[in-house]
Amino acid sequence: MRYEAGTYDVIVIGAGHAGVEAALAAARLGCQTLMLTISLDHIAYMPCNPAVGGPAKGNVVREIDALGGEMGRNTDLTYLQMRLLNTGKGPAVHALRAQADKFYYSHRMKETVEATHNLTVRQSMVDELLSEGGRITGVVTHTGATYRAKAVVVTTGTYLRGKIIMGEVQYQSGPSGQLPSLKLTDSLLDHGFQLTRFKTGTPPRVHRDSIDFSATEIQPGDDAFYHFQFSDDVEAREQMPCWLTYTNETTHAVIQENLHRSPMFSGVIEGTGPRYCPSIEDKIVRFAERPSHQIFLEPEGRHTAEYYVQGLSTSLPEEVQLRILRTIKGLENAVMMRPGYAIEYDAIVPTQLQLTLMTKEVEGLFTAGQINGTSGYEEAAGQGLIAGINAAMHALERESVILDRSDAYIAVMIDDLVTKGTNEPYRLLTSRAEYRLILRNDNADLRLMEIGHKIGLVSDERFGRYLQKKEAIEREKGRLRTTRVKADEINPRLTELGSAPIADAVSLEQLLRRPEVAYNVLAEVAPSPEELHPEVAEQVEIQTKYAGYIEKSYLQIEKQKKLELKLIPDDIDYSVIKGLSSESREKMGKIRPRSIGQASRISGVNPADISILMVYLETHGKRSAANV
Amino acid sequence: MRYEAGTYDVIVIGAGHAGVEAALAAARLGCQTLMLTISLDHIAYMPCNPAVGGPAKGNVVREIDALGGEMGRNTDLTYLQMRLLNTGKGPAVHALRAQADKFYYSHRMKETVEATHNLTVRQSMVDELLSEGGRITGVVTHTGATYRAKAVVVTTGTYLRGKIIMGEVQYQSGPSGQLPSLKLTDSLLDHGFQLTRFKTGTPPRVHRDSIDFSATEIQPGDDAFYHFQFSDDVEAREQMPCWLTYTNETTHAVIQENLHRSPMFSGVIEGTGPRYCPSIEDKIVRFAERPSHQIFLEPEGRHTAEYYVQGLSTSLPEEVQLRILRTIKGLENAVMMRPGYAIEYDAIVPTQLQLTLMTKEVEGLFTAGQINGTSGYEEAAGQGLIAGINAAMHALERESVILDRSDAYIAVMIDDLVTKGTNEPYRLLTSRAEYRLILRNDNADLRLMEIGHKIGLVSDERFGRYLQKKEAIEREKGRLRTTRVKADEINPRLTELGSAPIADAVSLEQLLRRPEVAYNVLAEVAPSPEELHPEVAEQVEIQTKYAGYIEKSYLQIEKQKKLELKLIPDDIDYSVIKGLSSESREKMGKIRPRSIGQASRISGVNPADISILMVYLETHGKRSAANV
Repeated sequence: MRYEAGTYDVIVIGAGHAGVEAALAAARLGCQTLMLTISLDHIAYMPCNPAVGGPAKGNVVREIDALGGEMGRNTDLTYLQMRLLNTGKGPAVHALRAQADKFYYSHRMKETVEATHNLTVRQSMVDELLSEGGRITGVVTHTGATYRAKAVVVTTGTYLRGKIIMGEVQYQSGPSGQLPSLKLTDSLLDHGFQLTRFKTGTPPRVHRDSIDFSATEIQPGDDAFYHFQFSDDVEAREQMPCWLTYTNETTHAVIQENLHRSPMFSGVIEGTGPRYCPSIEDKIVRFAERPSHQIFLEPEGRHTAEYYVQGLSTSLPEEVQLRILRTIKGLENAVMMRPGYAIEYDAIVPTQLQLTLMTKEVEGLFTAGQINGTSGYEEAAGQGLIAGINAAMHALERESVILDRSDAYIAVMIDDLVTKGTNEPYRLLTSRAEYRLILRNDNADLRLMEIGHKIGLVSDERFGRYLQKKEAIEREKGRLRTTRVKADEINPRLTELGSAPIADAVSLEQLLRRPEVAYNVLAEVAPSPEELHPEVAEQVEIQTKYAGYIEKSYLQIEKQKKLELKLIPDDIDYSVIKGLSSESREKMGKIRPRSIGQASRISGVNPADISILMVYLETHGKRSAANV
Repeated sequence: MRYEAGTYDVIVIGAGHAGVEAALAAARLGCQTLMLTISLDHIAYMPCNPAVGGPAKGNVVREIDALGGEMGRNTDLTYLQMRLLNTGKGPAVHALRAQADKFYYSHRMKETVEATHNLTVRQSMVDELLSEGGRITGVVTHTGATYRAKAVVVTTGTYLRGKIIMGEVQYQSGPSGQLPSLKLTDSLLDHGFQLTRFKTGTPPRVHRDSIDFSATEIQPGDDAFYHFQFSDDVEAREQMPCWLTYTNETTHAVIQENLHRSPMFSGVIEGTGPRYCPSIEDKIVRFAERPSHQIFLEPEGRHTAEYYVQGLSTSLPEEVQLRILRTIKGLENAVMMRPGYAIEYDAIVPTQLQLTLMTKEVEGLFTAGQINGTSGYEEAAGQGLIAGINAAMHALERESVILDRSDAYIAVMIDDLVTKGTNEPYRLLTSRAEYRLILRNDNADLRLMEIGHKIGLVSDERFGRYLQKKEAIEREKGRLRTTRVKADEINPRLTELGSAPIADAVSLEQLLRRPEVAYNVLAEVAPSPEELHPEVAEQVEIQTKYAGYIEKSYLQIEKQKKLELKLIPDDIDYSVIKGLSSESREKMGKIRPRSIGQASRISGVNPADISILMVYLETHGKRSAANV
């Protein structure tokens, strides 16, 4: 029996990593927001790895923070370990990664969403979407509650017709003994969406006391203190180590012998799995030549004995999993507490979305996270934030927010999904970004905090502190440019560093451009008159040392931006443009790119077609403009 | 595909309040123990009220502690509020009750079971019990894992064919979005068990910030420091208040208007509900004359906004629940975070059990908790402890443990279940105990710690401290008996207290027997030479003041014990005993009482039948003995 249960500006379905960011953003932007979840005990739950960040993903967390999202803060307050990865390489690939405490991460996020003004959190399962004339109008829950809203964000993760598979065993389920969502799929189909079936997997968990840690290599956290937030109020937390071990030929033999029982290879699994997070059986088959693979043993929390066996994701039968574990050094006596499994779920084909994450088909309907074909908590959270912002903008009749590929990894991901689609769970990688020297871990605030402030998710106070940092960077860069040191002041130190001595006085900036001269060397001979925040010094150093490369990137960005700013009218009719290849005509007609820039990234659309399109818009656009 | 997954001494199915006590007890007794649970994230989860203890139930928690169980300790380490109830009345009805932090209670219990030696905890669902020749041999999980064991304890709570019902809505589910256990029922039926269908319910949860606390009455915790454990190492915790409000005539009118939509009254619910924890619609119907009912608003944790609405358990439709809430003072703007619901589940008819909680039908198979027809976390935990102990004893081929009704509320409950059965979820009440002056909150250690130590669950160190306490009590009682005070030493104080002056010197004991003379009055005039622990002073006072009643109880117990010690041979054939009423013959044949005492408590067995039985045993027993 249906009943009217209330009217909101924005409804968010799901309370995982996408759902919480969407709901928090919409509520913080002043929208009356309702978040519905199958279980209030699983808010921001981590069904897979107990970790946040890493290459590209860590940058996303920083971006979420700079835009006013929650993932960075929540991680900083609950992590078990923090490491800056790839510090031996350039700053473009530095990546912050935290081991998360699953329980406290979830519990603190629950506390946060519950305490957020304008946000109502309710336990319920959504069975149906309501729309009228191509516009979303609300949702209906399994209890018949009908909630009305101007915008709805769907973040169903792996719950949508979720099916768990281990060897020959399969059953309908959400992750970790949760009920799946079985009816919403029909409603999406009824609304004309094309769905696909993806799968992801998780490794077994083993008991701490059954691990021989002495046979593994310790992986401690960094001594230096890192955090995700733009903040000086973060406190360092006591860290727990991870441990590294390896698969070996015996491991691989056990897997080989049992491949016929793998649902991946026996054909039981219809969903496509994530290429960059392959199961161990996948790795053995695809990289048959490799004699071993890394296995990280990661604590799942400060007060639990469960250890996550990173690298051993599998859908082999339970008993095979145990046999695999026990071939590995340090795990000879492993006690398996949870088996690994594959989970299949429904996702939508993301080319049905706009860059705002609103669906093209239904106005006011947004999707974010795994339902859009991605994998990863950070990818989900980044989309959730953008979908939440744009759902709010839609409800408030404000202008929507579209980030550029040169602004953020989040934008790279969304543009990839929407423009290219994906035929497997999409994961962010630094290689997906054409401007990765710009999209650094260290400068998310400089890239995005103005946008976050303009949107309204970054407070004036926080923004003020950001402006201070930005000004301090510019002041110090100015000082470096104008302060000159004499040869005798610096040459002894240069010789010490193996750097060529100077003949005439040079600016500090010139010295800092030398790879072997670190900022602290300058500080020795010509210290700044003001005390510099370490983050300011870091920026000054990176921006100076890599100035040449960075400038080159900005030139590319500028060139590309001209294409991004050449917008294509919504009502363009590709069928009337003469000379377009039929593939380009079909694909552009389906994806309906927002700009020439986006059109140029559609696979199968070649430069000749882009030229034809530009000429057409040039003449046709003028005519249109004249008609207005 | 089935596979052999390991051999244990004891397997425990389920990790709720019964399961964890059973598993911990068996493991601590040296048995290799396996605990299997549908979700490792829900160990010792509280699906209903966030509270431990209260009348009779609090005494059970103390009993569990004295026997070496975990519930008391876990509560002491995580509670939100602690109160000693009924302090205005005699010590027989004093009851300790804690508000629990649901999240930390569960999380700490998970940590405890994971850290327990001999105990393996694994996420899996059991689909089948294995037996051979009437003896349990193991279990099979949904993944085909076959675990062998000498003893199995089934603690399925509300998961066994769980069905959630709200108004017209119903679906298969465990509590709070969890998967139910659907197959184990068939295996129980295959083993010849008679099952029944019970139901229980839970009220809605509302958001803290939507409550107008100023319109309610505050219910703070006690200033005095109480704890459940026998220990001096417990630390007091910061307390949170509860809040009291009431239903009113408008509330009742809304319920009346919607009774036709209640699954209780429309016939949708086939299971029988708990009489002493009725739904609000039940209360309105059964106590139509009462203009209002108490409603307690209880926090569910220190870091959550969820409040439990105690007193408003209901299976009315969701929208009616919200309307009901909003008629109540302080809840006019309530935001409902979870609706209340009824949950139906399979239970076994408990007269199929022995007093050890081993089933009569299958040797080595034990059941505990809601599957035995009880309701309540404490009832479950108490049974879990006894079942776990006896499963261990069975596996170790040691003598089983049966407590007497005069030892513990736990024994009263088990004897009631096994001897009388129950046609509704059974709840412990002080009125169920014939010796409630003996089964006090304050003396669980004195009643049970020797038994706990003998079983092997109470350490020598802990037992040593207990013996010290016991000796101190006896020393002080001796001193009170032998120390006399003169009239002029005490009369002024007696007059002050409104107590009659004495003429001749009397013993301190005599003075303390006066209701108006508290122990601290004696301490003023004739202090003990040793510093007395407050618990020692408390015992001395209670044992002295109520000595008359207590002695009377002990006389009754002694008399009854003679009957309890008159054991009935396992192989007795009631059909050959002449003169028994047919009802007695049938019931005794089914229940197979262990002793004349137990036989006398079977409903329908009258004193004449008991006499006939005793005469028969007298003559027949001698003959049997002669045959040996």
